[in-house]
Amino acid sequence: MTDAPSDTATDDAADSCHSGATHGYIADKSRYLARLKRIEGQARGLQRMVDDEKYCIDILTQVSAMTKALQAVAMGLLEDHISHCVVDAAVAGGPEADAKIKEATDAIARLVRS
Amino acid sequence: MTDAPSDTATDDAADSCHSGATHGYIADKSRYLARLKRIEGQARGLQRMVDDEKYCIDILTQVSAMTKALQAVAMGLLEDHISHCVVDAAVAGGPEADAKIKEATDAIARLVRS
Amino acid sequence: MTDAPSDTATDDAADSCHSGATHGYIADKSRYLARLKRIEGQARGLQRMVDDEKYCIDILTQVSAMTKALQAVAMGLLEDHISHCVVDAAVAGGPEADAKIKEATDAIARLVRS
Amino acid sequence: MTDAPSDTATDDAADSCHSGATHGYIADKSRYLARLKRIEGQARGLQRMVDDEKYCIDILTQVSAMTKALQAVAMGLLEDHISHCVVDAAVAGGPEADAKIKEATDAIARLVRS
Repeated sequence: MTDAPSDTATDDAADSCHSGATHGYIADKSRYLARLKRIEGQARGLQRMVDDEKYCIDILTQVSAMTKALQAVAMGLLEDHISHCVVDAAVAGGPEADAKIKEATDAIARLVRS
Repeated sequence: MTDAPSDTATDDAADSCHSGATHGYIADKSRYLARLKRIEGQARGLQRMVDDEKYCIDILTQVSAMTKALQAVAMGLLEDHISHCVVDAAVAGGPEADAKIKEATDAIARLVRS
Repeated sequence: MTDAPSDTATDDAADSCHSGATHGYIADKSRYLARLKRIEGQARGLQRMVDDEKYCIDILTQVSAMTKALQAVAMGLLEDHISHCVVDAAVAGGPEADAKIKEATDAIARLVRS
Repeated sequence: MTDAPSDTATDDAADSCHSGATHGYIADKSRYLARLKRIEGQARGLQRMVDDEKYCIDILTQVSAMTKALQAVAMGLLEDHISHCVVDAAVAGGPEADAKIKEATDAIARLVRS
């Protein structure tokens, strides 16, 4: 991932998702931003630990904590996504519904593996 | 994890590790710092995506990429730790060796679960 | 898990799912059974490796392969579940829909952590 | 993994490991066999659940429990491996020591990803 990721590839999917609606996570936008800001702080804390030549196991413990925090954000986004975009597509029906479900389960598979 | 984690709990272990030596990762310190800086950038990129109300699935894809980058840092630190601190303790022998191995496998278990 | 797990706790959810329908995975029942039979064979293969005192790293490689096979079964079941039970509940609407989504994301969270 | 996996590829490593010694896990051989037998039973229990058309979420819960049991076996094997083969190689020193550490961290990376 670069600092400024392009996500044009899925713009159509995005459009079809918030046609007349918003993404599920928008209602909690400021809470997600706060959580990601804390995760950014954890990344800075890790740099400080490395710079201060802290004990490797302590650094690993913080990496595990940061990974857990990231996974928790992912689970929140996923729940919001399923309860909004996927469900909306399911109610509308048709091939779009199947595509949304496939897309969501592919994202889950990436999370399980990562 | 707070922004300024305390790691006093394992200070003794740390001391016994770099008694007369340095942590395994120090040789690559600047490379680890660069990788963590990039991960910090990914955390900022995620905030921008949420702020710009990007498509949830694209955000999840970036979360997976960031998690993978973090895990790669953890694996590097772990390899350096085993080949330095654990091996040094093993060569020295005694109860310290067993403690180091237990500590390392506990850290691995946390990584596998996170 | 015991050899004969009780699943009475979620019987109501199960009933509401296949009211007038079947679980999503039933269409692929024989394929799931074949995959689980192969996984059972992997568990037996691991016992043989331990009994023959094979090299630990080779055993670990097979444990990773077996874990991956299990996760693939889980992902298949999950996709079938979302595209049937969750979507059906979503189309029906009401509190049942929210409960199904919560239940599915809780299951996903368990998979991500395991 | 087939039912009868070949592990000839690492036979040399295995030999160098138990030259004059045994694998770390052998001392607990019967306990590992009992745990793997229980995991085999879980695989059979899952087949019964699919055959009885149990609720998908309950099956997923058991898949997570079985994955956790497998990971616990892997962690045990890994700890035994590090405290015997890796440490023995470390004490002996030379390129063999580095090879053992690399091999162990590669196995850990496979576990973290699976």
